[in-house]
Amino acid sequence: MNEREWLEYLKKYLYEKLPVIATYNEDATVIEIKENHYLLLTTDTLVEGIHFDLAYFDFYSLGVKLAASNLSDIAAMGGWPKWALLTLGSPKPIDPSFIDPFMEGLVSTLEKYSAYLTGGDTVRSPFFFFSLTLVGETEKPLLRKGAKKGDYLFVSRALGGSSAFLRWIKEKPLDQIPENFKKAHLRPEPEIELGLFLRNIASSAIDISDGLLLDLSRLCIASQVSAEIEEEKIPLEEGATLEEALSGGEDYALLFTIPEKNLPYLTKINKKIFYLGRIIEGVGEILFLTKKGERKSLPPKGFDHFTFLLQS
Amino acid sequence: MNEREWLEYLKKYLYEKLPVIATYNEDATVIEIKENHYLLLTTDTLVEGIHFDLAYFDFYSLGVKLAASNLSDIAAMGGWPKWALLTLGSPKPIDPSFIDPFMEGLVSTLEKYSAYLTGGDTVRSPFFFFSLTLVGETEKPLLRKGAKKGDYLFVSRALGGSSAFLRWIKEKPLDQIPENFKKAHLRPEPEIELGLFLRNIASSAIDISDGLLLDLSRLCIASQVSAEIEEEKIPLEEGATLEEALSGGEDYALLFTIPEKNLPYLTKINKKIFYLGRIIEGVGEILFLTKKGERKSLPPKGFDHFTFLLQS
Repeated sequence: MNEREWLEYLKKYLYEKLPVIATYNEDATVIEIKENHYLLLTTDTLVEGIHFDLAYFDFYSLGVKLAASNLSDIAAMGGWPKWALLTLGSPKPIDPSFIDPFMEGLVSTLEKYSAYLTGGDTVRSPFFFFSLTLVGETEKPLLRKGAKKGDYLFVSRALGGSSAFLRWIKEKPLDQIPENFKKAHLRPEPEIELGLFLRNIASSAIDISDGLLLDLSRLCIASQVSAEIEEEKIPLEEGATLEEALSGGEDYALLFTIPEKNLPYLTKINKKIFYLGRIIEGVGEILFLTKKGERKSLPPKGFDHFTFLLQS
Repeated sequence: MNEREWLEYLKKYLYEKLPVIATYNEDATVIEIKENHYLLLTTDTLVEGIHFDLAYFDFYSLGVKLAASNLSDIAAMGGWPKWALLTLGSPKPIDPSFIDPFMEGLVSTLEKYSAYLTGGDTVRSPFFFFSLTLVGETEKPLLRKGAKKGDYLFVSRALGGSSAFLRWIKEKPLDQIPENFKKAHLRPEPEIELGLFLRNIASSAIDISDGLLLDLSRLCIASQVSAEIEEEKIPLEEGATLEEALSGGEDYALLFTIPEKNLPYLTKINKKIFYLGRIIEGVGEILFLTKKGERKSLPPKGFDHFTFLLQS
């Protein structure tokens, strides 16, 4: 099964009728609970040996990253994060040496965005894993679908830093790795404020968790459009490679499209955002305009752990 | 850390102000979203090698049990189950041989109680694990706290079958194990209908997931009462031992208290329920009246996996 086949497969089991507006095909499940009031549900998990290695990942950062990855999904939906449930899988008795920094990182990150821990489950496991479910709300969900031909494509920050961290950690001790890579991989920041602003002006959005190309192709498929991006516009995190910016995972930037008539509102965003290219006719194709002026179609190559699960 | 210390510890990190009515100290988180309308949030996880062994647990049953354990939490809160998110951790590429029966078991069990799968996450993991978050609703949450001295204590079905299964499977092949034990352990049934009825007449309730004694002591501590139960009243699943009925986990029966004035309403319940004893003064003590007429205090010994995590 590839990803598209997997989503197709899941359709058989998913409830996709009102009041359910969106399921696996969005960054969060969207349920209309009353007029102009939607519940957002998302869940994200970090598994020891797969998503992190305790040789370099401290427990405070694990808490931060678990919160941030879930918050980023709510950000991409233009929502307010609200309530979180934590599932903690532990191979050993709980003791302060790891639970204190983990909880501090998790809860301080949630609370920074006015989200709160309200419950969960604690289980024994052969390995550590941390799973968070985050409930959010919005009066206007921002979806992956909605991008139209001619819309302008933006990304909310420089890319590739998280992936560059993984390249460095293979060869260097943690204290020799550039700070910007450590921050990108260990303590990413969700774009909650930006997402809330965008829900009124963007035609579509997604968070980049599995790489620019893969997440852009998801947005394009959902919107039934294609995109053209310009190599020279792609913002590289300082020291990251183009490959890392295009296909590295876990940047947690927002990727979004703005109709031409709404471009003036972008001046109200109080952070730097980056223009990448335009939305064009087609279905899910990504055209790449190189610095040399060549135009080529790029396959949606993305983050490895996902590919593994869906190969047959 | 023992369980009480763990819950005390968590308080530092939990948000327990309105609109949050209950957190880790109940079977589900309760959030008041408008007058007489509460959101219920619960999550439960099955980890390979800890909660199940693929040598005897088929994937259809895993789906049933994952759904049932979460549904049981909503039942204990007197709620309607609504929306579910699945996190699937898999050590190998997804293929129909396991995903088909798992999804059939999960979704058919959810839908039997008008709950629906609406999203989730799929991750690579060194072992299988399955985690479900279930969102429910109620206009009147049924809590663990509320039991009063003199209330009558009941349980919704015979106990010990799930634990007896684990005793048998150590020595016998699956096909030689009595059907009632297999059903209890592999395909438990949540008490949704009963929970909905009880929210109007019971003073407190909890689901028995970690053993009668342990869950009764939780109910008693939450209610700031003690309980006296009679040995001869405890309903044993046919072939199960008293020890399994008292301290075996995963029965998913409801344990609940009824004030004397509401006893007449019990005749409206269209299933057999079992009287266990009475609520008495005290805090968290369980007095056990043996068949020989002795009265002794029993320690709240419960399901092993939980104890492991909290020993220091």
